[in-house]
Amino acid sequence: MSTVHDQEQRTARAYLVRVAEPPAPALGSFVREHGPVVAAERVAGGRVPTDVAKETSARRTLCDPVADLAAASEYGARLVIPEDDEWPAWPLLSLEVACGRGRSDLTAPLGLWVWGTASLMESTERALAVVGARAATAYGEQYAADFGYELATHGTTVWSGAAYGVDGGAHRGALAASGATVAVLACGLDAGYPAGHARLLRRMAAHGAVVSEYPPGTRPARHRFLVRNRLIAALAAGVVVVEAGVRSGARNTAVTAGALGKPVMALPGPIGSAMSAGCHQMLRRGEATLVTSVGEIVETAGPLSVRAADDSSAATRRPTDGLSPVAARIHDALATRTSKPAERVATESGVELSEVRATLPLLELDDMARRDDGGWRR
Amino acid sequence: MSTVHDQEQRTARAYLVRVAEPPAPALGSFVREHGPVVAAERVAGGRVPTDVAKETSARRTLCDPVADLAAASEYGARLVIPEDDEWPAWPLLSLEVACGRGRSDLTAPLGLWVWGTASLMESTERALAVVGARAATAYGEQYAADFGYELATHGTTVWSGAAYGVDGGAHRGALAASGATVAVLACGLDAGYPAGHARLLRRMAAHGAVVSEYPPGTRPARHRFLVRNRLIAALAAGVVVVEAGVRSGARNTAVTAGALGKPVMALPGPIGSAMSAGCHQMLRRGEATLVTSVGEIVETAGPLSVRAADDSSAATRRPTDGLSPVAARIHDALATRTSKPAERVATESGVELSEVRATLPLLELDDMARRDDGGWRR
Repeated sequence: MSTVHDQEQRTARAYLVRVAEPPAPALGSFVREHGPVVAAERVAGGRVPTDVAKETSARRTLCDPVADLAAASEYGARLVIPEDDEWPAWPLLSLEVACGRGRSDLTAPLGLWVWGTASLMESTERALAVVGARAATAYGEQYAADFGYELATHGTTVWSGAAYGVDGGAHRGALAASGATVAVLACGLDAGYPAGHARLLRRMAAHGAVVSEYPPGTRPARHRFLVRNRLIAALAAGVVVVEAGVRSGARNTAVTAGALGKPVMALPGPIGSAMSAGCHQMLRRGEATLVTSVGEIVETAGPLSVRAADDSSAATRRPTDGLSPVAARIHDALATRTSKPAERVATESGVELSEVRATLPLLELDDMARRDDGGWRR
Repeated sequence: MSTVHDQEQRTARAYLVRVAEPPAPALGSFVREHGPVVAAERVAGGRVPTDVAKETSARRTLCDPVADLAAASEYGARLVIPEDDEWPAWPLLSLEVACGRGRSDLTAPLGLWVWGTASLMESTERALAVVGARAATAYGEQYAADFGYELATHGTTVWSGAAYGVDGGAHRGALAASGATVAVLACGLDAGYPAGHARLLRRMAAHGAVVSEYPPGTRPARHRFLVRNRLIAALAAGVVVVEAGVRSGARNTAVTAGALGKPVMALPGPIGSAMSAGCHQMLRRGEATLVTSVGEIVETAGPLSVRAADDSSAATRRPTDGLSPVAARIHDALATRTSKPAERVATESGVELSEVRATLPLLELDDMARRDDGGWRR
């Protein structure tokens, strides 16, 4: 049920996501300090510090948040805001941490337009990005689709950018498995871009979600793709680059994911293929881990959860690396936010209750499990 | 001119390389302690410590070193011994160091039979091994030959194992460039193995060398290939694996080179190819650096010299660390903000214009140089 206060906050956020071109770090700090309602009022009235004015003065009188919300609602989209339960606060924390360390280009979004049935938060719970070149070869498109399909059958939500080539292959593969897949766009959800993917986007909205930080009517622009890439990097637990030229945008997503401390993976390919040259360069420089199968992707990405930013050992070790197969199964059966009794962990992991009871305290010692009234969680 | 003392030492060494099946660490120490002449006399007379007796008792009365030297001489081969100027003492030191650290399987050879015109020492001065699967695909054979050819034109001696597939391709590529190439065999030089490579081996003897630790008449045996691999790993400054199955012998050469502190490189390939699976596994585990061109091989292997074993500073290297001295000079001559034409880079670096022109695009690939209207800059 939407209360008056909810509506006020949502309208304020709709104003704020329109008034500044992301990333807008000064506005972000201002909103954190004053809350969205006061912040929006003060921006609209021009009563803001210089750095916020710089980001907002061009549009501050030109926004119509009520019209934006109505336009979105017309095609079934909504504005998800940090005040909502489905806001993916945990994965987006990696952006706030990076931003706080001086990466102001990695500012967290002020709200996200979502078109689709999926909960934004649940879509990030087991999420991997599969990205790559628009001008993919048959090799790249095939493996994008294969990996999309297989990851989806593993219960992973496949995130990508809805572009032609690798992105489209990954989304289609996940849909073919009746799995969940989410596209993050560099334009308004109603921009119908890319034109040839209109039907694909509708199918994603029906079975997953299409997400954008840009309000209705925003056209795609070159710089928006780079800005958009940080959201894919942040909202997925890891990035797989299937094919990339040396100057591919997919490498930007990968580099950003690396800066956020997330596992970056790349497929090798024939060395004569220009579409594998970007992947090979990343692998050669140690910016990505080589993967050739979904098994290796899952092994590299671990429990598909978000890791702390700037974890410099990221390339080589994960906390779960040392776990025995049985302990790993028990750990896999734990959820992040809700606790469950040991009995349920035993059922879900298929490990004997006595062994579950013996292992959970060991995981707790390593900060991989926590006990509370409801039982156990990660 | 061969003196009586020389002949005495060579005959003693011919006896010693025959009397024990390599690797023979106890015999190696014994020879280092007493010198070859005394050691050979004592082994022949059975007056040796138990561990040396264990290695030598089976054959001590069955060796005819004079006949071995005569047989070798008959087909134009010679026994090169540590007392010779052409003995590659420096590269073989890596084996002695490893052996001293407990890797008794990596004992240095007591002498090497050499068939060919090339000096053994000079053949190790700029030396890279190109190895891989016998059952190579067309992809692997093509790149083995291409890399063999290009490395040879760079003045590098191409070392390999004379097997079918990748090894043969690498040798042939080097020969096609009228370059130097050396094969290390797992049998006597007269064993005519592999049969289909008899002509290739003759061409190598004419233009480079064929080397073996095994005396005339020794048949190839399974374990001898593994023992032989340590010599390829030690005598080359680095190893490039072109194609390898998951259980390929080429991986053994690569692992040994890694244990000796030498750069290990591997080519990626299509992920569906079983013949690239071993390369991908090494790359995924960080056991090898990905290379896609001779430029990258030269960059990775550096000045093609032997690095100290257990060089743990590898992780903290700067991007320019892997540059060859010439490439580093070219890079040094570039400015950050202003571009200059290749001619000026040549003048300032003192490197020939043609080499500057060939190197700059390689630096560009690695983001260490950028081309624009005014020429080149960092």
